[in-house]
Amino acid sequence: MTPDEFRRAGYAVVDWIADYWATLGQRPVASQDSPGAVAAGLPAGPPEHGEPVEAVLADLESLIAPRLTHWQHPGFFGYFPANTSGPSVLGDLVSAGLGVQGMLWATGPACTELETVLLDWLADLLELPKRFHSGSGGGGVIQDSASSATLVATLVALHRAGGGRWREVGVDRRYRAYTSTQGHSSIEKAARIAGLGTDGVRPVEVDPDTLAMSPAALRAAIEADRAAGVVPAIVVATVGTTSTTAIDPLPQIGAICAEYGVFLHVDAAYAGAAAVCPELRFGHAGLEYADSYCFDPHKWLLTGFDCDAFWVADPAELIEALTVLPEYLRNAATESGAVIDYRDWQVPLGRRFRALKLWFVLRWYGVEGLRAHIRSGVALAGRFADRVHADDRFELAAAHPYSLVCFRLRADDETNAELLARVNATGRVHLTHTRVAGRYALRLAVGSPQTTEAHVDEAWQLLASTADALLPR
Amino acid sequence: MTPDEFRRAGYAVVDWIADYWATLGQRPVASQDSPGAVAAGLPAGPPEHGEPVEAVLADLESLIAPRLTHWQHPGFFGYFPANTSGPSVLGDLVSAGLGVQGMLWATGPACTELETVLLDWLADLLELPKRFHSGSGGGGVIQDSASSATLVATLVALHRAGGGRWREVGVDRRYRAYTSTQGHSSIEKAARIAGLGTDGVRPVEVDPDTLAMSPAALRAAIEADRAAGVVPAIVVATVGTTSTTAIDPLPQIGAICAEYGVFLHVDAAYAGAAAVCPELRFGHAGLEYADSYCFDPHKWLLTGFDCDAFWVADPAELIEALTVLPEYLRNAATESGAVIDYRDWQVPLGRRFRALKLWFVLRWYGVEGLRAHIRSGVALAGRFADRVHADDRFELAAAHPYSLVCFRLRADDETNAELLARVNATGRVHLTHTRVAGRYALRLAVGSPQTTEAHVDEAWQLLASTADALLPR
Repeated sequence: MTPDEFRRAGYAVVDWIADYWATLGQRPVASQDSPGAVAAGLPAGPPEHGEPVEAVLADLESLIAPRLTHWQHPGFFGYFPANTSGPSVLGDLVSAGLGVQGMLWATGPACTELETVLLDWLADLLELPKRFHSGSGGGGVIQDSASSATLVATLVALHRAGGGRWREVGVDRRYRAYTSTQGHSSIEKAARIAGLGTDGVRPVEVDPDTLAMSPAALRAAIEADRAAGVVPAIVVATVGTTSTTAIDPLPQIGAICAEYGVFLHVDAAYAGAAAVCPELRFGHAGLEYADSYCFDPHKWLLTGFDCDAFWVADPAELIEALTVLPEYLRNAATESGAVIDYRDWQVPLGRRFRALKLWFVLRWYGVEGLRAHIRSGVALAGRFADRVHADDRFELAAAHPYSLVCFRLRADDETNAELLARVNATGRVHLTHTRVAGRYALRLAVGSPQTTEAHVDEAWQLLASTADALLPR
Repeated sequence: MTPDEFRRAGYAVVDWIADYWATLGQRPVASQDSPGAVAAGLPAGPPEHGEPVEAVLADLESLIAPRLTHWQHPGFFGYFPANTSGPSVLGDLVSAGLGVQGMLWATGPACTELETVLLDWLADLLELPKRFHSGSGGGGVIQDSASSATLVATLVALHRAGGGRWREVGVDRRYRAYTSTQGHSSIEKAARIAGLGTDGVRPVEVDPDTLAMSPAALRAAIEADRAAGVVPAIVVATVGTTSTTAIDPLPQIGAICAEYGVFLHVDAAYAGAAAVCPELRFGHAGLEYADSYCFDPHKWLLTGFDCDAFWVADPAELIEALTVLPEYLRNAATESGAVIDYRDWQVPLGRRFRALKLWFVLRWYGVEGLRAHIRSGVALAGRFADRVHADDRFELAAAHPYSLVCFRLRADDETNAELLARVNATGRVHLTHTRVAGRYALRLAVGSPQTTEAHVDEAWQLLASTADALLPR
């Protein structure tokens, strides 16, 4: 494809996306088709001769788009938001067009340096502890996801627990990882990948009211394990749990980690973005205890997946844990010690120029634009929670410090599951569910920059009217 | 950003990329600036108020682009190619614009189904063994990189070696991974991440002529380990090693793995793409023994990073090893057992719609276009090797079955390193180096669709004239 062919086809694809966004609100949020509908519509193999881009766009519109869950839809309230934005898409487009491989500083100096600087910008924007800033001996890096950040943190913690011998001799199965019963599934997955097994994870009880990790339970678990000859290696605390956005108390948890010499990773995948607003930094109190921290601009900061921002206080320890240097990657810049080679900060070797999309977002929105976006989400969630609170048939299932509201009908689990199914079947909104203290609850998470009061109100109307049908008056 | 703002800014970005590609050949392939040049040119923080996209594009042109290593440059011959193409960029643009999260079938049915079908297309295109095809009980998935594929294969092998108890009890440090001394660094990294440590990897000697793994040495290592109470868990064989594109003999290695019940993963990251051409499938002989296999369309098949195609013969074993199912991800489709949830096939939870870029590439080029691209690379490498061979001052350092040529001046290592440095300093070409049997060698890897005979001839002219200056006549 020549540059001029690219220009023409590129305009057509840009138009397709602009039209998709303009019509998104009219599309059903999720497909109701059965498994296999897309596969059945595809030919048995690729064409022998090339086809024009227009042919692919036609199939995209008729075959693919109707069978998607539209995560950017203003009525999408499921899981956590994973929102993108125009500037993010354009930054990613530049990255794809450059096709630069950022594994080493030498293989793309600007790719590495822009990333380092932007992670410092973000650290300042969230007012993270100075120790994570590259100017203070720390450092940030973009991972694909919080799952990978948790894995990397776990590996560094194991290396430290093993007295620096982990990288040669492997993992000692007496090491343990601690997280609350509300911790993300990726913590168990990381422990399994790292060779600790599911048995290597200690689920720590939470306070029944706040659903936050109990410091007393953490201390008890650590002391019991130590008495039994087991070695506490890492605590993963969460700011904004996936189920209900509970906030683990970092001041107390951090002090316990410091007392027992345990590595502390803080996972703020969703809620960290809120800290761009000074009044929403409460979850980060005590963060100065953390050895590593991450949040996902790809969740609530208008940057398309994949963009997890991960910081460590001691990059040297991270690099020592993960580096392998074969001859074909040796180069003068690396050997000078004056540069960062981000391949040593992550699981894969290769890496895309992901800092570009973050750069486009930060510059297009500016600090005030980002704050307005976060505040809008919190306000919309508050508006919805007010509706729930004002209707005696419903109850809030947990606090809503950010933009997620967990709620339920005052009815049994089956009725609540039916409520969710019926409301989602309208195609106007898409919510998901969780369990809070064992009981089924619906989750409404606000995040799309296209979501307005009208969309949240429509969601509430659909829920209220479906409740009318489900509950005898 | 409204859809109309996106349309206007999108055209500008498309234009920027088209112009970048059109002028690529005139840019120096790599920057000669010292570390810190980009960081010094950036402000201390993001702007308070938003800026237009044009302002970012201006900085991209003046600050970022001059400090890149241009991987898509027709004179880029370093590492392995990591080439993209117009249709790949556009497919990725659609993916960014949709912003769909493909972790579960339910979160993006078309995202999952298109990927499954395209991996079947690719398996047929490369004529892989039927056991990897989804219609025959196997299955493919897109990983970000071959590093991650190797890690996932290692985890499945450990799960199998542990009799299915690995996921609960963790790794047994008596397990061993085997690869040749020429195996990729990601194999050691995977073993380390998985908790085996560097000590858990057995480097197997190679045949000194072919640089391919010696089956006799593999057998001897396995037998010695078994006698010592150590458990062989996985062999990673390579088709096209990173240093020289050596091809491990799969028929013999596979038979040994079958005899001892060891998991066999085949890493064809770079060379696998060659198998789209029937006459270049020789490296895959014996592949029917493999439990898993991967190659990177993002290296030599015109698809932008990240796109590693990974297959397993037994997906159930893979899923059992990696799945964790929290309440908030439960859904009817998953519980029906009728769908694939690709989150269980990889390390992270989240995933982009990467099948789109592959779809755009396969349809734009068609089978004949892909074959023409591979054949062009092989022919250009052959042309260059002929030049080397015809000049008595030079020698080939290894065979060149694909599009990589390893060569050196008949001189000491320092002279060869100086040759590389001087040629790269011209900014016209970019080559990298390796060591073959301990001796320094230069590597010229052809891959860009923009590379023509003129570019390869220019590389040769620069090398030959620099040799004139370095070697006294």
